[in-house]
This record gives sequence, C-alpha cells and structure tokens, in this order.
Amino acid sequence: MTGDRELYLFSSDYLKTFCTQVFIHFGISEADARQAADVLAKSDLRGIDSHGVARLHTYFDMLALGRINPKPNIKIVREKASVATVDGDNGLGLVVGPKANEVAMEKAEKHGSGWVSVCNTNHFGIAGYYPLKALERDLIGWAMTNTTKLVAPLWGAERMLGTNPIAIVATSAVAYGKIEIALRKKEQIPKGWIIDKDGRDTTNPQDMIDGGAQLPLGSEREMGGHKGYGLASMVDILCCVLSGANWGPFAPPFALRQEIPDRSVGRGIGHFFGAMQIDGFIDKDEFKKQIDEWIHVFRNTKPAPGTGGPLVPGDPEREAEAIRSKEGIPLIMPVVEDLLDISRKTGIPFDVEQTHA
Amino acid sequence: MTGDRELYLFSSDYLKTFCTQVFIHFGISEADARQAADVLAKSDLRGIDSHGVARLHTYFDMLALGRINPKPNIKIVREKASVATVDGDNGLGLVVGPKANEVAMEKAEKHGSGWVSVCNTNHFGIAGYYPLKALERDLIGWAMTNTTKLVAPLWGAERMLGTNPIAIVATSAVAYGKIEIALRKKEQIPKGWIIDKDGRDTTNPQDMIDGGAQLPLGSEREMGGHKGYGLASMVDILCCVLSGANWGPFAPPFALRQEIPDRSVGRGIGHFFGAMQIDGFIDKDEFKKQIDEWIHVFRNTKPAPGTGGPLVPGDPEREAEAIRSKEGIPLIMPVVEDLLDISRKTGIPFDVEQTHA
Repeated sequence: MTGDRELYLFSSDYLKTFCTQVFIHFGISEADARQAADVLAKSDLRGIDSHGVARLHTYFDMLALGRINPKPNIKIVREKASVATVDGDNGLGLVVGPKANEVAMEKAEKHGSGWVSVCNTNHFGIAGYYPLKALERDLIGWAMTNTTKLVAPLWGAERMLGTNPIAIVATSAVAYGKIEIALRKKEQIPKGWIIDKDGRDTTNPQDMIDGGAQLPLGSEREMGGHKGYGLASMVDILCCVLSGANWGPFAPPFALRQEIPDRSVGRGIGHFFGAMQIDGFIDKDEFKKQIDEWIHVFRNTKPAPGTGGPLVPGDPEREAEAIRSKEGIPLIMPVVEDLLDISRKTGIPFDVEQTHA
Repeated sequence: MTGDRELYLFSSDYLKTFCTQVFIHFGISEADARQAADVLAKSDLRGIDSHGVARLHTYFDMLALGRINPKPNIKIVREKASVATVDGDNGLGLVVGPKANEVAMEKAEKHGSGWVSVCNTNHFGIAGYYPLKALERDLIGWAMTNTTKLVAPLWGAERMLGTNPIAIVATSAVAYGKIEIALRKKEQIPKGWIIDKDGRDTTNPQDMIDGGAQLPLGSEREMGGHKGYGLASMVDILCCVLSGANWGPFAPPFALRQEIPDRSVGRGIGHFFGAMQIDGFIDKDEFKKQIDEWIHVFRNTKPAPGTGGPLVPGDPEREAEAIRSKEGIPLIMPVVEDLLDISRKTGIPFDVEQTHA
C-alpha cells in the first residue's frame, strides 16, 4: 500500500494467474484462459489501466450470464492467399483476437501480408497487443475493432459509432474514461469532447450520461472532425461490413449496464487484423536501421515551450512497462474490491497481502 | 464568365486535352501524359480545386527544370505474392502512382490483397483518385503519401512531417490551403491550426510563413493531437522507410519556392497503396447491400442543431462531380493566367473563349 492514494501493488504474474483461474472456472480451456489473461496483463504492464484487470469483472459478468461462449469453435469461413474472414463463435475477444491475428501473421510470413476480418466476437482488450505480437516476428501489425456506440458522426446529434481504435489510436477525440474521471471529480470538460442529447456543444460531463455522444477526433468541422468521423467509418466497415458483424449503432454492448440495440444487422462485434512482412518490402536490417534514425531525428525536434519535446509513439507505454515489470502493477481500491468479489463468488483465492513495494 | 467572382468555366475534356499536350511537350509518352492529365481532371471534377489544373504550373516548372524524369523506368524492385516495392525512377507521381496502384490491384485480384510501397517518386495528385480506381474493380483501395514538411509533431516547435494523407483524409488538422486563404483575406485563423516558429499557439496565419508549423489532426494533447501525430508517423513509415524514400523532414519539396532539406535519407518522396478484394472476405453483393444500408442508417442520424445532419464520407465530392461533369470546371483568374503562361511558353493553344455556361 502506498499511503493516501490507496494504491495496492501486485506482481503482473500474480494477477495473470488469478485471471487465468477465473477464465478456467467458466470452462474455458487452460490454453485459451492463459491467452486471455496475457492480453489483460499486457494492458496493465503498458500502463493502460482501463483495459487490464480493471475489466475482469465485466468479462466475469458476461461469462456468468452465458452471454459469451466459453468453448467457441473459432473458424475461417472464407479465404484467399492473403485474406480471410474468421467467425469467432461468440467467444471471448481476448481469445478470438489472438487467433485471428495469428492467421494474419501466418499469411504474412507466406505471402507477404495477411488481412483478417472477424465477426461474432467480443471486446478484444487493448488494440496495441496485436501489433506488438507482429513486431516479435518482424511484421508490421494492424488491429482495429468496433465498439459499443458512443460517438456521433460530425453534425449528428446521437451515438452512432464506437470509439473504433486503429492499432493503438482511438478515432474519438478522447477516451470515454476521461469523461468518467471528470464526472467523478465533478469537473467541467473541454468543449469538443462531447455533445448533449440534442447535439449541442457542452462542457458538462453529465450530459454524456444523459444521452449525449462523444465527438470524433478533430471534434468540429473547422478542426477536422470530418476526418475523425471518416476514420471511424473506415474501421466500422473493415471490421463489421466486411466480416458480417454488427456495424455502427447496432454493435452489441460489452458491459451489462449498457443498452441493447433494438436491431441486429450481423453477428457480434467485429475486428480487423493485418500483418505485413517487412522483408517483403525491404531488407529488415536496413528497415530497422532507418527506424532507429527516424526515432533519433524525431526525439531531436525543437521542443514547444513548456514541453519536453515530442514523444515517439509508444513512449509512455514502453516506460510504464519498464517500471511495472520491476515494481508491480498499482491497483486502486475499487479494482481490488472487484477482484475480491470475483474471488468470493468463484472460490478462487485472491490475497491482498500479495501487495509488495 | 459568371460576373464579379470572375469564374471561367471550361469543360473537363478541354482542360484534360490541354494538360495531356503539356506533358507530351516534355517528352512524356502519350499514354503516360493521358494518365497524368486524368488524375488532375478527376481532382477538378470532384471539386478539389487545389489539386487539379491549378497545380499544372508547378508540374510544368519541375519538368522545365529537369527536376522530374519524363521517361522513367518504373520497376518492381522487391516482391512477394501480396506485397511489392516500386522504384518510380523520379517520374511524375501522376504516372508512378497509377502504375504502383495497378500492381496493388492485380495482386489483390490474384491473392486477395496487394500492398505496394513506392520510393523515388513525386507528388501524386489527390489520394482519393486511387481508391476510386480500386472501387471500379470491386476492391477496397488505400492510398497514402508523404509530402514536404509542414506539420510539427505534438509538443514539437518545428516542421517535421508532411500533411501525409490517408486515402482522402489528411492527417494534419487542416489543409495548408486554408491557411493561405486566411492570409489572402487578412483574417485570423482558429487556435489549433498552427504554431509559430517558437512552437507557441497563434491565430495569425502570417506566423506559418515566418517559420511556423501546422498542427496534426486533434491539434492539442487534450483534443487528441497525439493521435493525428501517430497517424502521420504511420504514413511516413509505410510510404518512406518501407520503400527507401525520404521520410519526415527530409522529404524533397514539390514547389520551387520551398526550401530543399539539407540532408537526404532516401530517394524522392514515397507513396503506399493497398487493395483488398471484397470477394476474398464476403460475397460482394452481400457487402454492397450492407453498405447501402449503412449509408441509409447514417443519413438518418438525428441532425445536430443548425446542420443538415451528418454527411456520408465522399458526399461533397460526389455532388461536385455530378454538377461539374455537366456544367464544367470553374477556374479563377489566377489559374487561367497560369494556363495562359504555359500556353505562351509551350506554344500549345489555350482558348479562354472555350468558356461556356
């Protein structure tokens, strides 16, 4: 425990083992359970607290209610040399995602690239997990997913699209979690994050709860809001229309408290994975040499006043991983309580005294 | 002529023939000249005035000075079934782009997808031209290019990246042309478009001329500026590092008045094309049926106050094309004067009396 901020530190391995046991509890195979726990663990290690064990209770709820299939028959339903469509059979996205990504990577190693659209799946954790797996094999990876509707199209007054991330970039102006934080702290939010239920600009985060919507990256027309909307649409079409999943406002919710759409236009939500073999384009050592130089040049950009200068994409996550893999994962009390609740309901031990540091 | 705004109307075919002759004048083959003119004509038809014949004088200058190779030996320098790298031999981007895009499309028809990184090339016109070609063949197309440096990374105080478009979305907050328009009208611009030469926020467009830089899509950290920067970096790496072209601040300029970088890290600028066969993923009639439904649903989004409701990406361009293919292309006097100047210098007739409507 680290005093007044009430942070509890756990080793990544301890949390991963707990998550694995919880998944096994629902009849998920040990290999699949380990895979699912690995995605959550990576999120916590990389400092993306919102997508790690903090989400375990939601997966737990969905499994407990039978809303997710613990033993999916994940299969390729259509394919050519470098493309395929995968049906996730309503399995955990944390299991379907890595399997579909594996199909993309194998195709890339054989044919130079592989592209897989996935239907009938669920929340797949952090999008960044998948390109990191590709990188281990000298592949350039892509990952996209649609999500429950939260975002209005530019000039729309209602939620029609998810936050639809591309690799590790959400196409909404901000993450939904930032609005939740402002709500909890009873603070105003900047203009351009959300609109109210009538489509008007607002700085009151409560308006989001009362039927408002997030704005796409760029926010207003004048600042490029149509570009964020265009990118979100692209993700929606590649993940869902191409695979036969539910697109746009028809994406089924991930959490229990969210409204279920009145119509279904496909199966589950959708993902899209891509992998391109570096060696198919250029000698991979030459590529890595140039990337090192790219990073060096961008780190040496003249800094804007009051900043430490530009980061290289991924810097904060790499830094968090270096620290957390040594010092442990800090969890706030509400997350610890969620894990204790799961422990009580499943009988799987969870020991807060594991806390170290 | 349409009165006080001094718009001259020309048929698209007339302008296309003139452009073709200008390219032939420099020793470009008739087929290549027609192709290059077709890219410019499409831009004018789609209402993207900045990238059509308004740019002809710049291509003219570069060809006249021998800075572009009129008879390039465009070749695949490395490939696998679904990927390739193309060397454009310093040809017109308007010729290299369509050839590389053709390679991507042929691979897509054979292997489900095709991805081509291009080095040693030049400005390729509107990025939207390439996916439109793919669409004619039931392929989903991608096009990206780097461009001369204009954009600062988030928290940087200098130009390090181009406006780096993805298909038809620039990854900068706004197009450079919007800043030029404000300059001409002596108007202020919104905060978030550019920074001055020291990296400070500014609403004075003159600061851009005086060494400032554009901001990426999202503008500030709080509004997702790191996401626009991340997308611009992705384009830079796929187009340039993967092909061996000049990346980041080392992209050579397209126009004569722009500064030449003090270092070269590759050959020319770079493009990246992709094509995915719809039929490789899903029955293409099923896909089209769902896309029609997608468009119907998004057109029926509740409109934000004071707007006509969301557009579907591409709406303004489709509307412009419908009007301009009937009524002609409106050109402002400075563009007409550019074309007359080229006519005088080359002896190719250009008749302002072609004006109709």
